[in-house]
Amino acid sequence: MSAGALAPGATLGIVGGGQLGRMIALAAADYGLKVHVYAPDADSPAFDVSALATCGAYDDAEALARFAASVDVVTYEFENIPRETADLLARHAPLHPNAEALSITQDRLSEKGFINGLGIPTAPFRQVDTPDDLARALDALGLPAVLKTRRFGYDGKGQRIIREPAQGDRNAIFAEFGGAPLILEGFVPFEREVSVVAARAADGSFAAFDLCENEHRDHILALTRVPVPGLAAETGAAALDIARRIAEALGYVGVLAVEMFLVRNAAGERLIVNEIAPRVHNSGHWTSEGAMTSQFAQHVRAVSGWPLGDPSRVGGLAVEMRNLIGDEAADWAGLLAEPGAHLHLYGKGEARPGRKMGHVTRLIR
Amino acid sequence: MSAGALAPGATLGIVGGGQLGRMIALAAADYGLKVHVYAPDADSPAFDVSALATCGAYDDAEALARFAASVDVVTYEFENIPRETADLLARHAPLHPNAEALSITQDRLSEKGFINGLGIPTAPFRQVDTPDDLARALDALGLPAVLKTRRFGYDGKGQRIIREPAQGDRNAIFAEFGGAPLILEGFVPFEREVSVVAARAADGSFAAFDLCENEHRDHILALTRVPVPGLAAETGAAALDIARRIAEALGYVGVLAVEMFLVRNAAGERLIVNEIAPRVHNSGHWTSEGAMTSQFAQHVRAVSGWPLGDPSRVGGLAVEMRNLIGDEAADWAGLLAEPGAHLHLYGKGEARPGRKMGHVTRLIR
Repeated sequence: MSAGALAPGATLGIVGGGQLGRMIALAAADYGLKVHVYAPDADSPAFDVSALATCGAYDDAEALARFAASVDVVTYEFENIPRETADLLARHAPLHPNAEALSITQDRLSEKGFINGLGIPTAPFRQVDTPDDLARALDALGLPAVLKTRRFGYDGKGQRIIREPAQGDRNAIFAEFGGAPLILEGFVPFEREVSVVAARAADGSFAAFDLCENEHRDHILALTRVPVPGLAAETGAAALDIARRIAEALGYVGVLAVEMFLVRNAAGERLIVNEIAPRVHNSGHWTSEGAMTSQFAQHVRAVSGWPLGDPSRVGGLAVEMRNLIGDEAADWAGLLAEPGAHLHLYGKGEARPGRKMGHVTRLIR
Repeated sequence: MSAGALAPGATLGIVGGGQLGRMIALAAADYGLKVHVYAPDADSPAFDVSALATCGAYDDAEALARFAASVDVVTYEFENIPRETADLLARHAPLHPNAEALSITQDRLSEKGFINGLGIPTAPFRQVDTPDDLARALDALGLPAVLKTRRFGYDGKGQRIIREPAQGDRNAIFAEFGGAPLILEGFVPFEREVSVVAARAADGSFAAFDLCENEHRDHILALTRVPVPGLAAETGAAALDIARRIAEALGYVGVLAVEMFLVRNAAGERLIVNEIAPRVHNSGHWTSEGAMTSQFAQHVRAVSGWPLGDPSRVGGLAVEMRNLIGDEAADWAGLLAEPGAHLHLYGKGEARPGRKMGHVTRLIR
């Protein structure tokens, strides 16, 4: 138990009211904590399961200060909170993960610089602030390459792949992004996408869930599978070690996800870090049924100053998690009827295309 | 899917705001339902995890009618709701389990008559409305015997054991109960207490969790263990069959618990039903980690008109559930630190003696 650990009955503040905040809130309730959710949308799914709710903008300093002063610890469910907001929150209550971790990971440029600084490989990259920068970066990194906004990208938003030499179009491509700070990333010829979801506690202890494999469709996570079939045991261990080094270097408290590319060639298997999510993560949803401690319970433990739970898989079973995107959730009745399928729905009203409506987990004997 | 099945986004009404209502609400949220809790205490634990809350008395007809009219289905977390309240609720929304099941099981006399009527044994019993009834009942059933209020008893409240012949004291014993309708039950020389937690769906399908063994301390459940060690396989099957017959005869929809005594003698193992709880039950808490579907999720499925989930044990593992009563919950930090222990706390303020504050579940490899 760390100094300043929450006691049952204390209030956990969560910034952000989507499904991740909702599932953190449910886990906190199971430990006897009260939850106060701060989110800008009146119909935020997390409001429905929380004792207290504040509907406010992420730049409403007064409302944020009142919120933070009303809780014992603040955490957040997504990384696009302005740094100023994080600093403001941290002045009124302990903020986990810390504002520095948030700040580094919410900018693809500082994130990659930080990761490389630890001696951990990423895709090659160049900062792009002008069309000339873009030209130089394309010359240096070659094609294909991916041009991305440095901030506020998720689920493939704010990025485009450049496949063909198109010298004349660089001004046009640059203009598409409306002047936002950009980064060009060299293409990694990866075999698969994998991720580690892990937690670091206030006392420095670390616990990682097993490495999992992710399949995306239209840039949105579609499927997570654990364990990763056909992987060398050393690769799994190396991935967990990467997550541990990142968490330590950030002075991190809470759950984080490290997305990686698995590259396989004659020399063997190699891991390249794609990005860090300073929060619970979609690729960790399988832990709700598949691990002895869910990522949500683990996050609550970490940010509350409690010891971490056992991250091992329940009964050593393999697990598969599928997202229900848009109208895939319309099949809820079929999924309820399927033996062994664990259906989770997020209480969202409208099943817009690309919107994450729920997920289903299956334990595989 | 039954006619009238709820769709995700519908509202489930729960009467009663204690830990059982709280855990039903958490399970409902995980399926994307909204929850409206009706309870008389302003600090009801279930209010903290529900979208909507009404604080009202169980005989406030107007508030109950408004509540029931605002939801798509009504269920309840305990059996001491007046029959009139149940009938009133059922006029405004489907009520599961039905008012008849509630009415039969909330009176020990009608409950035992109903069970015997199915050819299922109970302890011998006599109705006691006067001191003379008590004298006759003691003559008929012998000693020891247990005198109980017919209604509103739980956790050993409203009962006393009579061990010694005490003819002259019968008026005094009778007077202790303040004129409440009573029942005298003959003593069953049982080896263990066991229970079946099971569910029946609107379409008549039935699913039982494995028979479990219960240990009480001061009349309060202390420990549940599953599977029951050293039991004949036929006894387990017979227990599940008893629960199935009871649920069918009640036209039951939802989770129920049937508490039984296991009697062992030269003739073998025999089951005697002690009582029926028309609700999720403390002896089913182990299912949250130990079964493929928790009793709370199963109850939500049943009352929502959905198919039942798989009740089998996760990975076939044995499970043990211990209640945290009163200041036992003060050891929360130790339990959080214990590998493999799943701690649940109910968010109750004051740890009064005898108050159920939480529970801990352990999967045993």
